[in-house]
Amino acid sequence: MADLKKLGEFGLIDRFHSHLKYRSPKLKLGIGDDCAVYSSKAGTYEIVSTDALIETVHFDLKLTTPRLLGRKALAVNISDIAAMGGVPRLAFIAIGIPNSLSLKFLDDFYKGINRICVEHKIELAGGDTVASPKHLFINITIIGEVAKNKLMTRSGARPGDSIFVTGTPGESALGLKLLASKRKKWKGSERLKKQVIRSHLDPVPRLTESQLLAKSKARVTSMIDISDGLVQDLFHICEAAKVGAVLNEEWLPKSPALRRLTSVNNLNLIDFVLAGGEDYELLFTLKNEDARKISRQFEHAKTPVTRIGEITSQSGKVVLQKENGKIEPLQKNMGFNHFRSRTP
Amino acid sequence: MADLKKLGEFGLIDRFHSHLKYRSPKLKLGIGDDCAVYSSKAGTYEIVSTDALIETVHFDLKLTTPRLLGRKALAVNISDIAAMGGVPRLAFIAIGIPNSLSLKFLDDFYKGINRICVEHKIELAGGDTVASPKHLFINITIIGEVAKNKLMTRSGARPGDSIFVTGTPGESALGLKLLASKRKKWKGSERLKKQVIRSHLDPVPRLTESQLLAKSKARVTSMIDISDGLVQDLFHICEAAKVGAVLNEEWLPKSPALRRLTSVNNLNLIDFVLAGGEDYELLFTLKNEDARKISRQFEHAKTPVTRIGEITSQSGKVVLQKENGKIEPLQKNMGFNHFRSRTP
Repeated sequence: MADLKKLGEFGLIDRFHSHLKYRSPKLKLGIGDDCAVYSSKAGTYEIVSTDALIETVHFDLKLTTPRLLGRKALAVNISDIAAMGGVPRLAFIAIGIPNSLSLKFLDDFYKGINRICVEHKIELAGGDTVASPKHLFINITIIGEVAKNKLMTRSGARPGDSIFVTGTPGESALGLKLLASKRKKWKGSERLKKQVIRSHLDPVPRLTESQLLAKSKARVTSMIDISDGLVQDLFHICEAAKVGAVLNEEWLPKSPALRRLTSVNNLNLIDFVLAGGEDYELLFTLKNEDARKISRQFEHAKTPVTRIGEITSQSGKVVLQKENGKIEPLQKNMGFNHFRSRTP
Repeated sequence: MADLKKLGEFGLIDRFHSHLKYRSPKLKLGIGDDCAVYSSKAGTYEIVSTDALIETVHFDLKLTTPRLLGRKALAVNISDIAAMGGVPRLAFIAIGIPNSLSLKFLDDFYKGINRICVEHKIELAGGDTVASPKHLFINITIIGEVAKNKLMTRSGARPGDSIFVTGTPGESALGLKLLASKRKKWKGSERLKKQVIRSHLDPVPRLTESQLLAKSKARVTSMIDISDGLVQDLFHICEAAKVGAVLNEEWLPKSPALRRLTSVNNLNLIDFVLAGGEDYELLFTLKNEDARKISRQFEHAKTPVTRIGEITSQSGKVVLQKENGKIEPLQKNMGFNHFRSRTP
């Protein structure tokens, strides 16, 4: 921290800014004034999301690297933009830096931020750099744009709509469980373990897939990104539209790594798929007639989309049709709750 | 915290939202989706500022009240919008809540936020509510608007321009000093003590004054709000335009309370005026010929504006012309530095 004191707030800001390479044509004025200044197009909505990550609650510095932390801090915000059908443009980062952190750590953190900014053409347009008494905290605000007729919200699901999900939820939660315990105790190959850990530490926001949906003729009626767990986020969709849902256990996408690792370690595969959390996959509903359109459109996409169930008229009820034919009601809070799962 | 756990993240969000009364016509979608959605007018810039406040670094829960803390958290951001000549529209708050905080505290905090939102027609359009392991942290992002031809930045000062300041800087810093020590040891009346403490705990963002300037025909060449101290923020203006400045000790506005309390307690009045910090007054430069226009315009305003000096061509040099006629060079870092003045 001696270096940090010497640099001071403004020295640090200059240094962090020097790591960041992407410059947005929308931005008239970036870091260095009281506000960032930008202009936006007519016919578009501005969309804004803000997310706080606090050491020990959202991440553990012993379990990740500064670069991956930087990437993920931005990725979870980009995911919110994707969930509205938009594209990200500008980011703002407030960072509270404890004494114990090295300048090297911060440089690497901003290098991680820079990589994902360059990948998605996002400019870091402002922020606030302050001291923190004990824990590192990171707050990112992201501003994106969406064409007015392409906005996708949580609230439009109707009975009979099909429910889809991108990718294979569940790996992230298993990755976290693995990271937080003694890795050697776990059965299964190192390759598979690394894969699920990667899913947790370096989630890929589904911007490409969201843009495919936005361009498609299929009528997407609602969309959300899975941060709290598939079921909990499906509840958010159901509550917003006063509908219910039935999920089909057989249809749920099960990643080979997740299937194998849960099996050899005596864990419940379906629990991870349904309640995992921090997957940052897209969960969306669309008119049942358009379900085949979507499947065709994603045929050659890198990320699969899978039909996993249907919206029902049973307001606030989400059930699972099990492989044995039985119907099991699902609880909303089977997913992640920041205030329940907090570090003691 | 038992209550907080029971409510969970979403219960808390609903509860906080219920405290907030102002609804913006710009906002299509507020709290409750992945992003806030809004549209903006053609011919305007969007302006964005983000500020983090961390317990023990930026505030002490023993020295303020939750309502005042809520007000100030937003006020310092509104001040950034005022410093660009704009008006605030939407706010986003990320809050990290430690175990030790009561629901009553949070309710009062949001009531403070609500009051200032209603006063300035700002809608809280989103945020993130998370647990924090030890310290309360608050991060506010604010979005405002400014007509494209009314944008005021830090960077336009030219040699010969007059330097003005609103109000009477210095009280806030004295208020903080008073709060942080044994109040009874201080000489001077309780009324004056209360006044400077109020200046620290409940600063008034200078939106009205900023709008008066924006509407005036006077050519404002640069503007900044004083958060780090008059001299340090004047350095920011000088550095942005590669100019210097001379301040005139005699002209500096000295609040009667500050004058009296520094005098009876053997403190240096001018140090507080120049280096105080957290004043949230506006510091601006304008064409010398327009100086009288401004003085006339503010004649009947509640908040005075005072001409305090002149921009010079001596890049990066800020000096004080003392009452005894001597010229004293001023140091940039005489103001507040988050990394130097941090709590040990």
